[in-house]
Amino acid sequence: MCFSPGLLPCYDLEDKAVVIIDIFRASSAICTALSHGVREIIPVMHVSEALEYKERGFYVAAERHGEVVDGFDLGNSPYAFMDPKFKDQAIVLTTTNCTKAIHHASDARHIIIASFLNLTAVADYLKSMDEDIVLLCAGWKNRFNLEDSIFAGALTQMMGSHVNPECDSAVAAMQLYDLAKNDLRKFLKQSSHNQRMEYLQIEDDIQFCLKQDLYTTIPRFNGVSLQPIESVTA
Amino acid sequence: MCFSPGLLPCYDLEDKAVVIIDIFRASSAICTALSHGVREIIPVMHVSEALEYKERGFYVAAERHGEVVDGFDLGNSPYAFMDPKFKDQAIVLTTTNCTKAIHHASDARHIIIASFLNLTAVADYLKSMDEDIVLLCAGWKNRFNLEDSIFAGALTQMMGSHVNPECDSAVAAMQLYDLAKNDLRKFLKQSSHNQRMEYLQIEDDIQFCLKQDLYTTIPRFNGVSLQPIESVTA
Repeated sequence: MCFSPGLLPCYDLEDKAVVIIDIFRASSAICTALSHGVREIIPVMHVSEALEYKERGFYVAAERHGEVVDGFDLGNSPYAFMDPKFKDQAIVLTTTNCTKAIHHASDARHIIIASFLNLTAVADYLKSMDEDIVLLCAGWKNRFNLEDSIFAGALTQMMGSHVNPECDSAVAAMQLYDLAKNDLRKFLKQSSHNQRMEYLQIEDDIQFCLKQDLYTTIPRFNGVSLQPIESVTA
Repeated sequence: MCFSPGLLPCYDLEDKAVVIIDIFRASSAICTALSHGVREIIPVMHVSEALEYKERGFYVAAERHGEVVDGFDLGNSPYAFMDPKFKDQAIVLTTTNCTKAIHHASDARHIIIASFLNLTAVADYLKSMDEDIVLLCAGWKNRFNLEDSIFAGALTQMMGSHVNPECDSAVAAMQLYDLAKNDLRKFLKQSSHNQRMEYLQIEDDIQFCLKQDLYTTIPRFNGVSLQPIESVTA
């Protein structure tokens, strides 16, 4: 379990399955999009790339510092990705943390996207694989954040005896999830960047991102885009 | 609060007071040494530098991967630094994590060393300063570790209303310390690198490093060496 993309140099990703976690809100938005019929999400690192796609007629979502980037119609609010006009379409996406994490993990054998929205499906999928797993918290601008870490704890707990975590991060995250699980929203109110979220007026998004198992879709990166696979148990 | 030297690029250390935390065992050993009359500890990054000092007749302690480096008499066991022969002497020290953390923090205005052994003295000292504070966990080879993080939580709690932590790391660390505080040793048995510690047969050291407030000495880095200052309340 890696609490920040800034610590990825400590981890050898080759031959690993990497799970990207950015609960507020990119990984939740990606799960939502692919569960509502979006064909694929094309993650790009830079706003300039996103702009090039936009000029070529693509739907493009761009978020920085929690807000929709000027000149774009979409940010990373999950609700926005439910629009029926996106069905069977591709959407290009660039975000502060998540799309960077995807690119930084590009050495991995498998890259999938997880959120509370598809928690059980992801746990079942990982349990069905015979691969070493790295849970990569996207964090906030390379810093540790609470919501990604407690999710990583939830996912580790759910995998149970199928995994044998070999790092203190996993121990800490499972402990924190135990403290949080009865009321995730209340626990996260302690979060120092709860203030940031209040400033952004995204409470509906926050509530939505904390719902568990709305979807069974697992977004998987094929080197170019994220496309849906269904859970082994779905 | 920074959980690993690998995340230091996220933090602006200029004008800050940086507290270096490496509970098992370097920061505990440094506190012990300066409390038992050692005049100063000279931290160096590389074993090669340590060797040069040794050839010049210095006492030199060198630890890598938890063990004394071949050719050196001392590692980072706190007990070793109590030897009366070191009274009023300088000791050169290189360790896997702590001395690197000190050098990486060299932009800071103040650098001090903290451990459970001088917890209250450090908290009082920090409360007496009007500086922004960064608690830097030395971690284990740049990864998050449990003992440094719970100590950072303990120190943050002890500073109480004198500080207003602005990161999720502090929230998480205080929660973890609350879970750990009634029996630190038992809590840390969950630690995945507890196995590493068992392999090293350093249980006496571990028990010692978890004792609280044996000392009031605060090691402070002057750019070359760590020298003792006494707590404001001592």
